Amino acid sequence: MLDEIGRRARAAARILPTLSSETKDRCLRRIADKLLAEHDGIAEANERDLAAARDAGLTGAMVDRLRLTSARVASMADGLRQVAALPDPIGEITETWRRPNGLTVQKARIPLGVIGIIYEARPNVTVDAAGLCFKSGNAVILRGGSEAFESNRHLVELLRGELAAGGVTADAVQFVPTADRESVAQMLTMSGVIDLMIPRGGEGLIRYVTENARMPVIQHFKGTCHVFVDEDADADKATAIALNAKVQRPGVCNAMETLLVHRAHASTLLPALLDALASAGVEIRGCSQTRDAFPAAKAATEEDWSAEYLDLILSVRVVDSLDEAIAHIQRYGSDHTEAIVTENYTRAREFVRRIDSSVVMVNASTRFSDGNQLGLGAEIGISTTRLHAYGPMGLRELTSQKFVIYGDGQIRA
Amino acid sequence: MLDEIGRRARAAARILPTLSSETKDRCLRRIADKLLAEHDGIAEANERDLAAARDAGLTGAMVDRLRLTSARVASMADGLRQVAALPDPIGEITETWRRPNGLTVQKARIPLGVIGIIYEARPNVTVDAAGLCFKSGNAVILRGGSEAFESNRHLVELLRGELAAGGVTADAVQFVPTADRESVAQMLTMSGVIDLMIPRGGEGLIRYVTENARMPVIQHFKGTCHVFVDEDADADKATAIALNAKVQRPGVCNAMETLLVHRAHASTLLPALLDALASAGVEIRGCSQTRDAFPAAKAATEEDWSAEYLDLILSVRVVDSLDEAIAHIQRYGSDHTEAIVTENYTRAREFVRRIDSSVVMVNASTRFSDGNQLGLGAEIGISTTRLHAYGPMGLRELTSQKFVIYGDGQIRA
Repeated sequence: MLDEIGRRARAAARILPTLSSETKDRCLRRIADKLLAEHDGIAEANERDLAAARDAGLTGAMVDRLRLTSARVASMADGLRQVAALPDPIGEITETWRRPNGLTVQKARIPLGVIGIIYEARPNVTVDAAGLCFKSGNAVILRGGSEAFESNRHLVELLRGELAAGGVTADAVQFVPTADRESVAQMLTMSGVIDLMIPRGGEGLIRYVTENARMPVIQHFKGTCHVFVDEDADADKATAIALNAKVQRPGVCNAMETLLVHRAHASTLLPALLDALASAGVEIRGCSQTRDAFPAAKAATEEDWSAEYLDLILSVRVVDSLDEAIAHIQRYGSDHTEAIVTENYTRAREFVRRIDSSVVMVNASTRFSDGNQLGLGAEIGISTTRLHAYGPMGLRELTSQKFVIYGDGQIRA
Repeated sequence: MLDEIGRRARAAARILPTLSSETKDRCLRRIADKLLAEHDGIAEANERDLAAARDAGLTGAMVDRLRLTSARVASMADGLRQVAALPDPIGEITETWRRPNGLTVQKARIPLGVIGIIYEARPNVTVDAAGLCFKSGNAVILRGGSEAFESNRHLVELLRGELAAGGVTADAVQFVPTADRESVAQMLTMSGVIDLMIPRGGEGLIRYVTENARMPVIQHFKGTCHVFVDEDADADKATAIALNAKVQRPGVCNAMETLLVHRAHASTLLPALLDALASAGVEIRGCSQTRDAFPAAKAATEEDWSAEYLDLILSVRVVDSLDEAIAHIQRYGSDHTEAIVTENYTRAREFVRRIDSSVVMVNASTRFSDGNQLGLGAEIGISTTRLHAYGPMGLRELTSQKFVIYGDGQIRA
């Protein structure tokens, strides 16, 4: 079955790069219209997943993630319209130069080919990922979580129907029509067929895919994001940024997990900051100096320094210097996002130069580390390793570049 | 042993990104001077490899590849000076934009980390690869072929000595001090230590590394390069390009292996072209129409269409149209380099649009598909797969990019 899916995806990957931007954007808008028009059918398929989830005793939070409310269907449709409105990356000439012998050399964007997406509970990934892959000229093979199987299958049927109706091969979007684990293992062996694998889900899924895939994998392990409040930090900015980074949406990967504070603030700004965080419901786990400044804090253990809580919990450490803050981040960080709060020009530059996480910030909340917030227009995922893409990935990160050379009969001497 | 090498390489990879361009370039020039000054010691180490090669009964061509003549040592030194003269990719700001909330977003180049190079006979790869990795801020672990073991070890000692003398950690360049196969297998498992593996050698080595590596691999399988002589080709350009692409240096991956000729030329240009090639010593293996036009041609078999001869042999096919030429390339090509010879504007555009090989050319010899020839300044390898880099790879392709965000206290609503 997967052999046939792979064969069809590769055939589609030959056709997709030649589609005009107009054709692709028209298809995306068709699908958006269809999602809204077919809301009842989507809800019906979704209800089958929800019933199975309740029968299986899934937690309320997990059932909630599965649910496709009207608002969520509208949001998927809206996402497709936004992707349709983005510039087409395919064919973009990113550079042009001339050689002394008169050759004109260009680099031009092309699709990657066939992208595999292995994901967990949220059915909206089906539509979001298919839209981004399609716009960037890639065929996609979707393998969603078993909990959302009925919803995913129904959404893919709608997508494929609209592609065909729009005059485009439905094979651009492939769906693995089984919920067994074996299909994941088999996908990971398809190295001549799938050019890039993007796992979306918990750390366990990502490790499993990384360790077993025979093709390149976009790795997003976790976000242990740091905010460092420097000696010369502005107190208002530090407070606003720390609160926003921790509290605004604690369950996501770009939320702050560790706060580092210069010891100059130990007796004044630090207790005020932790008081504000505690008032917002945050549990503080600190080093000994933190606990001196804020006795309500629990003692942080070694595990706390690398923890990704995804919850209203924060580890806090007092450091003696920028050097110590950087050393802490290099030792315990996850290469996701780190911010410094400072008014000092030279230390701001040094932090930016020496921290090589995928996103490095000065005087801004870590919550901006997101494809939409940074202006990429959409996000297929975040890479925390450096090959191919690093940080939030948009349409461009789903492309490669070929060299195009225009000559007048030049030969090599 | 490899654990210790890996540990040292990772420690060096923390330091290298912070070196100034001046420091790096001074070190590269020091090494170039040293290579020239120490020519006798290099020749002595090399002589031990040559003697062993002769004892082992290696062919003359293989012994020749091992030999470090004065000219080759000078060429390595010259290569290092050229790399020193190239712009430093690290810290380069490739893009800057503003967000509506006032955030400034930049993308800045950073090194990849630790690069593993597994290579075969030529000892010059030791110096070339070390120079490119060092300039791009990466630590490198070199594992050369057993035939060149003494030469490689001696060259690495010189390199490390000059790095240390230049005030830089010698651990930037690591050498696997054993010639056994086991060390290659172990390197391929070091996924937390080596960020990218670049195998350089024959197809067997590259397949072995690709199939067994637990980290990303730059794959350069082969170059089955095509030249298509279109209906509206200029006869002089077609002749010059076909001869240059096949004959100027037949043993390299960017040499032409298959010539496709539009049937409009079957009775005039084709026989003249093949006559010129045959006069230059090229064996012609053709389709039946080719043999009608040029009876001295042998019959091409199915294997010939995907062969990488690396020799004075050429497969030739007559095609009915641009479509047929493109279909042939898509079926048998290796995604390396393809050229069209034409005076027709629309077909030139169509060839460029529809062929997604790593290098696509109009009216130029495939022999220009090379990092130096295209102006990249140097070349660490050529990638024939699309992830991370595609086509000739220079210094930039040994880097990643981080996001840098400058704010004024912005928080997310």
